Amino acid sequence: MFNKILIANRGEIAVRIIRACREMGIKTVAVYSEADRDALHTQLADEAVCIGPAQAADSYLDMEKIISATIITKAEAIHPGFGFLSENSRFATLCEKCNIKFIGPDAALIESLGNKSEAKNTMQAAGVPVIPGTKKPVYDWQEGLKFADEAGYPVIVKAALGGGGKGMRVVSSHDEFEHEFLTAQRESESAFGDGTMYIEKYIVNPRHIEFQILADEHGNVIHLGERDCSIQRRHQKLIEESPSVAVDAGLRKRMGETAVRAAKTVGYKNAGTIEFLLDKDNNFYFMEMNTRIQVEHGVTEMVTGTDIVKEQIRIAAGLELSYRQEDIVIRGHAIECRINAEDAAHNFRPCPGTIGDIHIPGGNGIRIDTAVYPGCTIPPYYDSMIMKVVVCDRDRQSAINKMISTLGEVVIDGLTTNLDFMYELLHEADYRNGRIDTGYIERHNL
Amino acid sequence: MFNKILIANRGEIAVRIIRACREMGIKTVAVYSEADRDALHTQLADEAVCIGPAQAADSYLDMEKIISATIITKAEAIHPGFGFLSENSRFATLCEKCNIKFIGPDAALIESLGNKSEAKNTMQAAGVPVIPGTKKPVYDWQEGLKFADEAGYPVIVKAALGGGGKGMRVVSSHDEFEHEFLTAQRESESAFGDGTMYIEKYIVNPRHIEFQILADEHGNVIHLGERDCSIQRRHQKLIEESPSVAVDAGLRKRMGETAVRAAKTVGYKNAGTIEFLLDKDNNFYFMEMNTRIQVEHGVTEMVTGTDIVKEQIRIAAGLELSYRQEDIVIRGHAIECRINAEDAAHNFRPCPGTIGDIHIPGGNGIRIDTAVYPGCTIPPYYDSMIMKVVVCDRDRQSAINKMISTLGEVVIDGLTTNLDFMYELLHEADYRNGRIDTGYIERHNL
Repeated sequence: MFNKILIANRGEIAVRIIRACREMGIKTVAVYSEADRDALHTQLADEAVCIGPAQAADSYLDMEKIISATIITKAEAIHPGFGFLSENSRFATLCEKCNIKFIGPDAALIESLGNKSEAKNTMQAAGVPVIPGTKKPVYDWQEGLKFADEAGYPVIVKAALGGGGKGMRVVSSHDEFEHEFLTAQRESESAFGDGTMYIEKYIVNPRHIEFQILADEHGNVIHLGERDCSIQRRHQKLIEESPSVAVDAGLRKRMGETAVRAAKTVGYKNAGTIEFLLDKDNNFYFMEMNTRIQVEHGVTEMVTGTDIVKEQIRIAAGLELSYRQEDIVIRGHAIECRINAEDAAHNFRPCPGTIGDIHIPGGNGIRIDTAVYPGCTIPPYYDSMIMKVVVCDRDRQSAINKMISTLGEVVIDGLTTNLDFMYELLHEADYRNGRIDTGYIERHNL
Repeated sequence: MFNKILIANRGEIAVRIIRACREMGIKTVAVYSEADRDALHTQLADEAVCIGPAQAADSYLDMEKIISATIITKAEAIHPGFGFLSENSRFATLCEKCNIKFIGPDAALIESLGNKSEAKNTMQAAGVPVIPGTKKPVYDWQEGLKFADEAGYPVIVKAALGGGGKGMRVVSSHDEFEHEFLTAQRESESAFGDGTMYIEKYIVNPRHIEFQILADEHGNVIHLGERDCSIQRRHQKLIEESPSVAVDAGLRKRMGETAVRAAKTVGYKNAGTIEFLLDKDNNFYFMEMNTRIQVEHGVTEMVTGTDIVKEQIRIAAGLELSYRQEDIVIRGHAIECRINAEDAAHNFRPCPGTIGDIHIPGGNGIRIDTAVYPGCTIPPYYDSMIMKVVVCDRDRQSAINKMISTLGEVVIDGLTTNLDFMYELLHEADYRNGRIDTGYIERHNL
């Protein structure tokens, strides 16, 4: 096992990793920017190294400084957390060259899974369902129609160079295809000077369902069940749950086995997440694989009683997983709300600042992951998440009620947060009834 | 279900109960003494009624004031928590007379289970093992010897009027009996003017193992496994765990079934605890039954994923238990440390005062139950417990390491606490190896 680990991150995830290390008897090194001199992660680690100015590019994203800090403090491994350098294959390569263990998969794997289209092809070849789409560019509407008729409607026509919704059309029937394809193509030609199109099956109001994977160097791969992360705003997850109301035991088994196969196919080693879209008919499609710990890992830990960060460290040290698939039992229902320093009433603009008094609830089935304390400052340079409130209770309704009660007790003076937004959302009948999908927030005009 | 509950308690247990009510959609009334005007439970409840001066006898123990507060606020039930009026049958009777639901068993049951010798006889008649002892007073040493030979050595000879260790002798063999009996009897005669003696089998260094029971009005009785509360100082529990290293699946089944039978025998309804002594040969003996929620209920909740306070409320409202026996699965290992405002270096004398800054850790498998906040005062009038730190991890060693890490992170400025004492205890080889019994603290000279 490692003697000392450097945590190349900040905020609550750095604190989370430091605590896991302390519990495992591993010494910790924090790195911090000038803005994070008084941050909790800086104070909590056994050692702390300042790595530069507030801007992340000059500190938390500066690979050379982080490698130097690792060498100077004689740390043997780097835990990258999420964000920052966690999925940067160049950084993983640099670690390998410097004989520092990067706590994550090999650099080559980060690279190939980071390329979405390459990852999709790899998974498809391994029998993992992907969203059906044309493999080659389409220029002719009749050629496109052939694919659309086969795939079934609706489909989405996308300009190869498209962006911002331009050159993009959802087509809901055979009869509309010619008109919509040609409109999209004309739009693309006039906007991007190019008429190259792709066609994909369009998944209407899918759920975002992701499977947590653990894979060690000895060929053991297990899954810890799913998370339903359908409540999103512009692809930013807001609320995550485990289990999903849309996934029964049979579907969990099928999706879980598919996720394990996906991880095995690429020879994955580390904790990882396989993201799927799930449609109304329980068809699921591989979207991407995340090769790091996720923000929302806590909901899985609460229902399964596991520790994913400790497993990451064990895997990186060459040990076997602590759990076999049959050890994993989902008990109760967990929900996470991400509390951000942002103004929901003004398009969720970030609201950094200094916190006054704080009251953080605790008790049965309540887990709060945060790095804030009374009087601390939320700097404007990094993301605006200040607290993850995770609750677990015997079923989904009880968990929602617990979350409402818990958010109602939280006090964060001095900052504008999305607490009220979350509080309202949790009271909505559609949310409470589990009628959620990735279009929920836009549709509900919250 | 009740619309409104009054909580006749203070501190962390009042907060615990208020949170359970909030999650169940039940309104809450706090009562508070003049010393608790700014207390967390006073602030957190929907309504709060001042019931008098700081001294508990004039406030938290004043039955008439509490009943008045209940009537005035139109609360339908009273949750007594633990301590104070929680096992006072007169108070339960008063509630019954005023048509207020006392959240606990009937007054008559509190009365009969509160009488230890009556409870012991009832349990023995129901086939629950109790510590073998003479049923009638013994005046003659030869009569006593007959019992001792049958029960097996060691036995303890006790003066009926004894106290403070006077008139009490442990006898380890047949040959010593006459001498020790007569010495104890002479001591009793000179100290208390009475030579009436009892003889009991003496359990050497037993473990304190208690079973958590839930029993509803429909005849459903289940147990939630055991707690090992052997780490005590003068019969005050300091550390509690679930499960016990001394209890394997077979013993758990036998003790659990016995505990359920004990509860059924007396027609028990509510959460309750059956306390046993467990000797080195896995013989167990009924000690007493507690008819209230216990301080240490959290360790059971963490390993079983249940909510005992919510079940108490459901039971009192006439509902069925949420769980069947087969739903109860023990997962991982939980440990609780009671953090008190006391000076371990000076005979654990209480150290009330005002708290400065506080840092309370959180994260995976960590539950903190407390009512303290920065700047709050711990009054000298009540017990000195200020925080319950409960952790849960996959096995006992991991849980001990998590507890050490967590206690190491706790900051409570301005007060003397037993944090260091706990921290040292958790590092001891005997504790870590599970070699604990009720004599541990005295023997280890901590």
